[in-house]
Amino acid sequence: MPLVQIHLLQGKTAKLRRKVGEIVYQTMVDTINVPPKDSFQIISEHDENSLIYDPEYLNIQRTDEIVIIQITLNEGRTVELKKAFYKRLAERLHSELGIRMEDVFISLVEVKKENWSFGNGVAQYAE
Amino acid sequence: MPLVQIHLLQGKTAKLRRKVGEIVYQTMVDTINVPPKDSFQIISEHDENSLIYDPEYLNIQRTDEIVIIQITLNEGRTVELKKAFYKRLAERLHSELGIRMEDVFISLVEVKKENWSFGNGVAQYAE
Amino acid sequence: MPLVQIHLLQGKTAKLRRKVGEIVYQTMVDTINVPPKDSFQIISEHDENSLIYDPEYLNIQRTDEIVIIQITLNEGRTVELKKAFYKRLAERLHSELGIRMEDVFISLVEVKKENWSFGNGVAQYAE
Repeated sequence: MPLVQIHLLQGKTAKLRRKVGEIVYQTMVDTINVPPKDSFQIISEHDENSLIYDPEYLNIQRTDEIVIIQITLNEGRTVELKKAFYKRLAERLHSELGIRMEDVFISLVEVKKENWSFGNGVAQYAE
Repeated sequence: MPLVQIHLLQGKTAKLRRKVGEIVYQTMVDTINVPPKDSFQIISEHDENSLIYDPEYLNIQRTDEIVIIQITLNEGRTVELKKAFYKRLAERLHSELGIRMEDVFISLVEVKKENWSFGNGVAQYAE
Repeated sequence: MPLVQIHLLQGKTAKLRRKVGEIVYQTMVDTINVPPKDSFQIISEHDENSLIYDPEYLNIQRTDEIVIIQITLNEGRTVELKKAFYKRLAERLHSELGIRMEDVFISLVEVKKENWSFGNGVAQYAE
């Protein structure tokens, strides 16, 4: 059910972009109970005039390697689960792809379970 | 008030993309009480490394004809209305454009009525 | 914390696009208590088949200069604060950039404060 939107600055390889997406997905499965195979993502590149970030908000030093991840998902996960997800995701993007943990920006948007149709015109989670 | 974002894989004609948007809009008017003329949409194309979908999550067989539709709209519609919308939208995309019903992915994001300004710096729905 | 997404039709200069973003950010700081430096934005251009708007919904005359602004931000701001933000933003885009107030479309999506990580894998607002 999560719909993941990932924004990067131009210049990354298609392979890297896909790998970022795979790690986001796998970390959701591992930490916040996202079902296997439930992977739907939009990954977008932007030029430097189109992806704007502050390089030091909250005293975190960000660079052009920033990855902005916005995830629409079902409501109800605890604060502790969300924290575990953020931590694990930043750690994995760093250890597996060399992305600085400072450059991992995450935004969650929560919705009700009846707000999805995965095909066939059916609200699969509301049945 | 709905703001509709539609994501498709590259290769569709501009005409088809617009027609998808028109059917999404008209189906909202017909099923979930969206007012006439209230049509605001962003339709985006993506390459195969940028729009990721699982081809069989929930045992629904999806193809590269997938249409991912995310709609920001006012909260308060019933589960039954949402179900009617999903069903009618998938049926119409199929009957009018030949899109497989399995390839229609819908995500709703609900907001308060004071969360919109349609121009002039006024919160028209909160007056 | 706000994540701002701005959609414009093609043909604007990079300078204008960035200036729109700066005014959106500065107006949030001035009217709805967004912290200094908290600026994260995606600014996208679209062709006329990809950004769809109604030219007269609610009797507001819109043109191809339309600016669609969607902001994900923390919940809890009052209706009065939101109204002040809409008004000031439309006024500033008009007075500073010549954008018609009718062409300023704003959509807010509210989330919980624990729904953000600004880097380092930490939920900074939930500490």
